[in-house]
Amino acid sequence: MTTEAQVSGPAVPTSEAKAALRPVGVRDVLLTAGPLAQWQRLNEQTSIPLGLKQLEAAGNLHNLRLAAGTAQGEFRGPRFMDSDVYKQVEAVAWALAVNADDDLTAFVDEVGSLLEKAQRDNGYLNSYYQVVKPDEVYDHLEYSHEMYCAGHLIQAAVAAARVGAGAKLLEVARRFADHLVDEFLTRDNPGIDGHPEIETALVELYRLTGHQPYLSLASKLIDDRGKGAIVSSGMGAHYLQDHLPVRDADTAIGHAVRQLYLDAGVVDVYLENGDESLLECSVRRWEDMVARKTYLTGALGSRHSHEAFGDRYELPPDRAYAETCAAIASIHWSWRLLLATGEARYADLIERTLYNAFAGSTSADGERFFYVNPLQRRADHLEGDDPGRRNPWFSCACCPPNIMRLVATFGHYVATTSDAGVQLHQFVPGTVQAGAAKFSVETDYPWNGTVRIRIDETPDDEWTLAVRIPQWDSANDAGTYRTFTRAWKPGDEITVELDLAPRLVHPHRRIDAVRGSVAMERGPLVYCFEQVDQSADVEDLVLAPDAELRVRDAEDLAGVGRTVLIEANAGKLQHEDSAWPYSTSRNDGLTAEPVTATAIPYFQWDNRDGRAMRVWLPLA
Amino acid sequence: MTTEAQVSGPAVPTSEAKAALRPVGVRDVLLTAGPLAQWQRLNEQTSIPLGLKQLEAAGNLHNLRLAAGTAQGEFRGPRFMDSDVYKQVEAVAWALAVNADDDLTAFVDEVGSLLEKAQRDNGYLNSYYQVVKPDEVYDHLEYSHEMYCAGHLIQAAVAAARVGAGAKLLEVARRFADHLVDEFLTRDNPGIDGHPEIETALVELYRLTGHQPYLSLASKLIDDRGKGAIVSSGMGAHYLQDHLPVRDADTAIGHAVRQLYLDAGVVDVYLENGDESLLECSVRRWEDMVARKTYLTGALGSRHSHEAFGDRYELPPDRAYAETCAAIASIHWSWRLLLATGEARYADLIERTLYNAFAGSTSADGERFFYVNPLQRRADHLEGDDPGRRNPWFSCACCPPNIMRLVATFGHYVATTSDAGVQLHQFVPGTVQAGAAKFSVETDYPWNGTVRIRIDETPDDEWTLAVRIPQWDSANDAGTYRTFTRAWKPGDEITVELDLAPRLVHPHRRIDAVRGSVAMERGPLVYCFEQVDQSADVEDLVLAPDAELRVRDAEDLAGVGRTVLIEANAGKLQHEDSAWPYSTSRNDGLTAEPVTATAIPYFQWDNRDGRAMRVWLPLA
Repeated sequence: MTTEAQVSGPAVPTSEAKAALRPVGVRDVLLTAGPLAQWQRLNEQTSIPLGLKQLEAAGNLHNLRLAAGTAQGEFRGPRFMDSDVYKQVEAVAWALAVNADDDLTAFVDEVGSLLEKAQRDNGYLNSYYQVVKPDEVYDHLEYSHEMYCAGHLIQAAVAAARVGAGAKLLEVARRFADHLVDEFLTRDNPGIDGHPEIETALVELYRLTGHQPYLSLASKLIDDRGKGAIVSSGMGAHYLQDHLPVRDADTAIGHAVRQLYLDAGVVDVYLENGDESLLECSVRRWEDMVARKTYLTGALGSRHSHEAFGDRYELPPDRAYAETCAAIASIHWSWRLLLATGEARYADLIERTLYNAFAGSTSADGERFFYVNPLQRRADHLEGDDPGRRNPWFSCACCPPNIMRLVATFGHYVATTSDAGVQLHQFVPGTVQAGAAKFSVETDYPWNGTVRIRIDETPDDEWTLAVRIPQWDSANDAGTYRTFTRAWKPGDEITVELDLAPRLVHPHRRIDAVRGSVAMERGPLVYCFEQVDQSADVEDLVLAPDAELRVRDAEDLAGVGRTVLIEANAGKLQHEDSAWPYSTSRNDGLTAEPVTATAIPYFQWDNRDGRAMRVWLPLA
Repeated sequence: MTTEAQVSGPAVPTSEAKAALRPVGVRDVLLTAGPLAQWQRLNEQTSIPLGLKQLEAAGNLHNLRLAAGTAQGEFRGPRFMDSDVYKQVEAVAWALAVNADDDLTAFVDEVGSLLEKAQRDNGYLNSYYQVVKPDEVYDHLEYSHEMYCAGHLIQAAVAAARVGAGAKLLEVARRFADHLVDEFLTRDNPGIDGHPEIETALVELYRLTGHQPYLSLASKLIDDRGKGAIVSSGMGAHYLQDHLPVRDADTAIGHAVRQLYLDAGVVDVYLENGDESLLECSVRRWEDMVARKTYLTGALGSRHSHEAFGDRYELPPDRAYAETCAAIASIHWSWRLLLATGEARYADLIERTLYNAFAGSTSADGERFFYVNPLQRRADHLEGDDPGRRNPWFSCACCPPNIMRLVATFGHYVATTSDAGVQLHQFVPGTVQAGAAKFSVETDYPWNGTVRIRIDETPDDEWTLAVRIPQWDSANDAGTYRTFTRAWKPGDEITVELDLAPRLVHPHRRIDAVRGSVAMERGPLVYCFEQVDQSADVEDLVLAPDAELRVRDAEDLAGVGRTVLIEANAGKLQHEDSAWPYSTSRNDGLTAEPVTATAIPYFQWDNRDGRAMRVWLPLA
């Protein structure tokens, strides 16, 4: 059962691609309830309108008008301001795939017209370089973000095309892409962009148009990496993954988002050209990253300095950078690996990232966002230091529009098809149209572990419904797909029961930063202890490895909404001061007074006050 | 027994100062053996000559010649390049206090002449602003470093004056100081410098000259802090300690070196004007810092981002910023508190910082320096990331010349005098002239705990010799001064036995980053485990809290020189991999194979190879 070549999703391999699984479109999956559906609605009703306002307020559209000659004034913001416009347009396009909206359609058209005016005759388009540094085009690819911005433009245009909006956008994007092909492929300019993103975008444009040079350029940009083509921008070659050819690099390194976008592009090129060495090196880096550089929440990037991956097992919860965009890029990468291989582990990481590192980025009201997503905030942490509280926008906006475009495409990540049948990767109540089959999912996941799937439409032939049993589940087949093969009839139903008993998890012994501590999970959700829920100072709480855990439903917790809390029998250590915090006597003999510690899903933190939070509690 | 008002040291309160103790001069203490004396010799023979070459190579002197009109070309390096020249001149001056050297004297004179030529008629002097931004003088005090550079000039000039060198330097410095007084005191310009340093320098210039306006300006610059006088440089008011008035700020915060220089100035102003509220607030911050923001090595600054103090108890060993200059500034601050109060705890912190955080900054050959001094380096840590290995110099030089000026003044920190007698704070073999008393110290400290003090000259009257018993010692009077009151006669001897049994130390339970780990100390030395000394991967070592520790003398360890190693009965955990580093089962039940783990003093690390190092080992 294969799906049509072009579906309304952001990553849609061609029918010739080396894909084990085929995606369904954003509009093929209707999310009707649960936190993801709720977030998607909030995205449409609150976040996207906010984003549109911010693009005016922050000057992104103004900059493009300067380039178009329709406005006067100074360029505003960092040099990659255009990219926020493109991410926003992409978010709007995917939102339109689900719900028609005249205002949003008009916005896409307006941007298309504006870009058409701003674009140079040769196809080049970048408001910063056109307005501020017209003589330095492509002179500083190491930091210019010119191809990075082009990549986001292309993704926006592809999205618009796939949902049938913004015809001008695609024309503009193709002219720019043709210009890039001319400049960097035909003329064999050795330049590559300091910030990957163009690679995956060019592959998608190839998928949409069938125009081979786009794929060839993407492939060249990946092959040329790690050969010293980039003049250092002062942060070292590994910062922008130019330290080694992609086939030789064993570990995710340097600026996290750069590495992750690059690897998404690597897998995209593999999918279309079948070069196994690309898949191999990408899987190798993914495995190393997941085993040694990934936070419990799925978050990535251990260092504020250079927004970078750290050493192996360097995973501080308090100083985690854990950029929201890194979570997004991780989902993009894992998704492509899932399509390429069909292995459940990629969908497992997507789920973990989606419900924790990524979901934590946005406030319950959809109006504020984290750029940085740590696993601990101390009581005396400064508001002014990252990540303080969530903000409505950032001077380098980056994350909020990126959040919006992913939220708008949730449907894309729920199910796939293959010759054998349909795979259900994520559990969201709603309906799924997968090729000729259609089914409904009924569940209160992630709050409840019962998932009922009812067949609504089906071809007559036998096919297999494969349901991911998450790696965290207690069933024997956890971490694989449970398969149901039948000649299905409308009305057929299957039920999967996932084990949502709360569990305590321990870190690998090499993760120095959380040694001797324990965290709590339930289903796909990582939990955290916020000060607002405790009777004791959150820094004084300790947990026994066999602590009794009690689940407590909360239909509408103030500021948070629907949630499930977990209460644990915990200890409160006596608070002791000392003039010097190192001693020849161990202080773990401190008496602990019994208290109840209450945990809330990590993704719901910081919706009530700005006080302390911990994911990891010391062991009693 | 008081000393003359002007002694050859960098911090010399006036005879009217509120000082419990009075310093002796750099030239009053002769260091003859042991690591500090050896370092001082290396400083004179290797580091200072290297520094002089680097000032030419990096362009610091070139910049001043541009300002003087005696050279052509472009300004080179960051805007505070002059400060490295001044720190270097100060180092040279103090070196001259101990050993005459015609070349070094000539260097001081040459710089004096160069500065005289470069200085504007109104007294202003800053090569960057004179050459690059002549119209922006004092326009950007938040980041300009103009007064910061002036402070280092003043300190260099005071040093030269106190050792009888470089008369022109003092004239230049006074003209600049008079200009600052005119600009910021007389005209009541509200500006204060984004980087403190001028405050302590102005107090010292007041001490040297008796010119009251210098003290008044220092006092004003401190009083004006925290009132919003500084336009933000984008990193928040707390970054440069402008978030609160100094009397209201409870904790060391923001850029560590800025905070520490500021507090040195706060105590200096207290010493001279007797404003108790200044001493109170500074002691309050010192106590909070020592209890909650100080590394075992005495190092300060937990974050690479903003080179800043972290939250309370945020003390990651791997990502410690622990800037060398912060250790230097900490010694400056504690020294002034020691002079003000006479309390042993300040000398204790000086000793810890001196032998660990500070001493680790310089290679055994005196040719390479750490800017950043972490307590852990993993095997896969990148050379290109701070702190990789020690470097001969830095694009922002900063630390190396600062190291040199402190090393040249070691003698200043050894002993003090008071009406009651003489206080011995640091144990260094050599001779001490303290007022009318002179004594010899015989010891192999820090390798051996026996300290013999023999009186060589003495007044006839009874006086008290007070010897600091370090806080880490096992004696009942540890953390205080052991006093010996007599009518001394030449040839009289006392002996103090310090307990150099190696000891294991545990961190305060709130220091998340080293929970469940243990470190090793012996005397004033913190130890570390370098890969080069181990039979197992250093990341696999674990230590029992009652591990047997054996001391092993090494007269000349290759690359390191004289040292004392400590061997511990340790465990080597089996190396286990896992695809996902979090698990519901605890992995601390791993079997540990018995091995010997060998530790070397922290200050001697990174002298053999660039592999892994840990100060903290997990508990078995």
